[in-house]
Amino acid sequence: MGKLLIVGTVAFDAIETPFGKTDKILGGAATFIALAASQFELKAGVVSVVGDDFPQEYLNLLSERNIDVSGIEIVKGGKTFFWSGKYHNDLNSRDTLSTELNVLANFNPVVPASFRNSDVVMLGNLHPNIQKEVIDQMESRPKLIVMDTMNYWMEHTWDELLGVINRIDVLTINDEEARQLTNEYSLVRAATEIMKMGPKYVVIKKGEHGALLFHKDQVFFAPALPLEEVFDPTGAGDTFAGGFVGYLTETKNVSFNNLRNAVIHGSNLASFCVEQFGTTRIENLNKAELDRRLYQFRELTQFDIELQ
Amino acid sequence: MGKLLIVGTVAFDAIETPFGKTDKILGGAATFIALAASQFELKAGVVSVVGDDFPQEYLNLLSERNIDVSGIEIVKGGKTFFWSGKYHNDLNSRDTLSTELNVLANFNPVVPASFRNSDVVMLGNLHPNIQKEVIDQMESRPKLIVMDTMNYWMEHTWDELLGVINRIDVLTINDEEARQLTNEYSLVRAATEIMKMGPKYVVIKKGEHGALLFHKDQVFFAPALPLEEVFDPTGAGDTFAGGFVGYLTETKNVSFNNLRNAVIHGSNLASFCVEQFGTTRIENLNKAELDRRLYQFRELTQFDIELQ
Repeated sequence: MGKLLIVGTVAFDAIETPFGKTDKILGGAATFIALAASQFELKAGVVSVVGDDFPQEYLNLLSERNIDVSGIEIVKGGKTFFWSGKYHNDLNSRDTLSTELNVLANFNPVVPASFRNSDVVMLGNLHPNIQKEVIDQMESRPKLIVMDTMNYWMEHTWDELLGVINRIDVLTINDEEARQLTNEYSLVRAATEIMKMGPKYVVIKKGEHGALLFHKDQVFFAPALPLEEVFDPTGAGDTFAGGFVGYLTETKNVSFNNLRNAVIHGSNLASFCVEQFGTTRIENLNKAELDRRLYQFRELTQFDIELQ
Repeated sequence: MGKLLIVGTVAFDAIETPFGKTDKILGGAATFIALAASQFELKAGVVSVVGDDFPQEYLNLLSERNIDVSGIEIVKGGKTFFWSGKYHNDLNSRDTLSTELNVLANFNPVVPASFRNSDVVMLGNLHPNIQKEVIDQMESRPKLIVMDTMNYWMEHTWDELLGVINRIDVLTINDEEARQLTNEYSLVRAATEIMKMGPKYVVIKKGEHGALLFHKDQVFFAPALPLEEVFDPTGAGDTFAGGFVGYLTETKNVSFNNLRNAVIHGSNLASFCVEQFGTTRIENLNKAELDRRLYQFRELTQFDIELQ
């Protein structure tokens, strides 16, 4: 069975959307990634840090889904990373109300020995130095290293960021961040520039407008499933990444053709994530629901024009 | 050979983009629709009106592509409809600098006798009363009536607009206009509401984000081809519509499955349109280029996940 190592935040989120608001609930990039990936046949482990205010039931929630939490450090007397945000009416943009780094400020990731030979490594959005340390701790070069990042690191840790991007295989990034990283408005040109920085593949996430996968001069597109209602977009990008790496770890095939399939699986998982607050929907998902919606993705995109 | 009747503007455009600006050049919805449709095996005819300032060479340009221009009335002493606009840097929005209706203000469309039995009718964006008059002049119910419209008619001729929407088969409309027409933010809900107004099919155009085709509870999505550069978006929506109706007229098959293919052909044609100013690129297109790019659309969207 393939092994997937995930590093990223495990956190509290407080979310406000036009449909309601939550108290502190389970959040964090690694949480969404791991829950999405746990839908596949694999061994997944999370490297992260929380305070001792983090409920054991949340850790159990992960463990019950066969997610190894031994790499989640619990800092005595520390407080867990907290993010709160409020979405605008169209749900396409949001204001961050507060970000409390707490224990994340001094996080030194330690990859459990049993995950140092992982097939796939997913570096969730974090300080690039933390992402780098995780790569350094691997005993052998993983089949695939996938990395997510955000504009903050471009603005504050440019050199460190480029140093990590140079060592990975796939960068997942949203459209605005791809433009910021490359100074190119065209996403085709932006992807080309990013590939020059190191990655063989680039996934540009466009939210409700789907995701583009680039490799050399090839491009593949996975739409977002058109939904009657998007309830809460929080974690959709990480859920996408979790479906992407989960499928690749299960199939142990990192060809471009299989990455195409992985992008569809990522979009499939993300389409569920946005239906309820936080992780609620992806905690409660079964294979039959996933398969049914994959069928919708096929109906949504497949056509039969005969080509010469 | 299938017959396609097109009603819409034949006009002068003056366009400014970040890449340059034009003097008065050939434009108008019917022009783009007809040029795109002329890539297919069909008989196309245009119903429109111009002034005697309209150059014969522009009419010849259409005739040489087997587009019947006998339904284009030339008003002696009249001036041709003129639109000018300036695109913002991202090319996703534009300001209209001037709109001179001129001969369009008193346009009474007359469908040539030889096109009153057309298989497909494309009602380009115009006053709904003109669109209605064209439907009224048909001798038999066409296999398919496709209609485009815009926000202006929602704001000024609501009742007339709904009267025409109620008589057509396919409404093509952009995302913002679909929301305005229905007061629904979700495009899935907007399409459902529009289908209640009469059309069996709704095509929602999202510009660089592709197009959605709705029918009952089914949905199909055609992405826009990711391009290195969009040079001028003018006419892309009409070119899309021209490819859509052109393919349907050639194949004489108005099933949902074939409409899916038609949406891809529309996107294919539109991807060329934006590469140069105005009609330049779609005037100079050959079948081999179209086929090559259809192949790219297949590469862009097709995947092979096995489903139970």
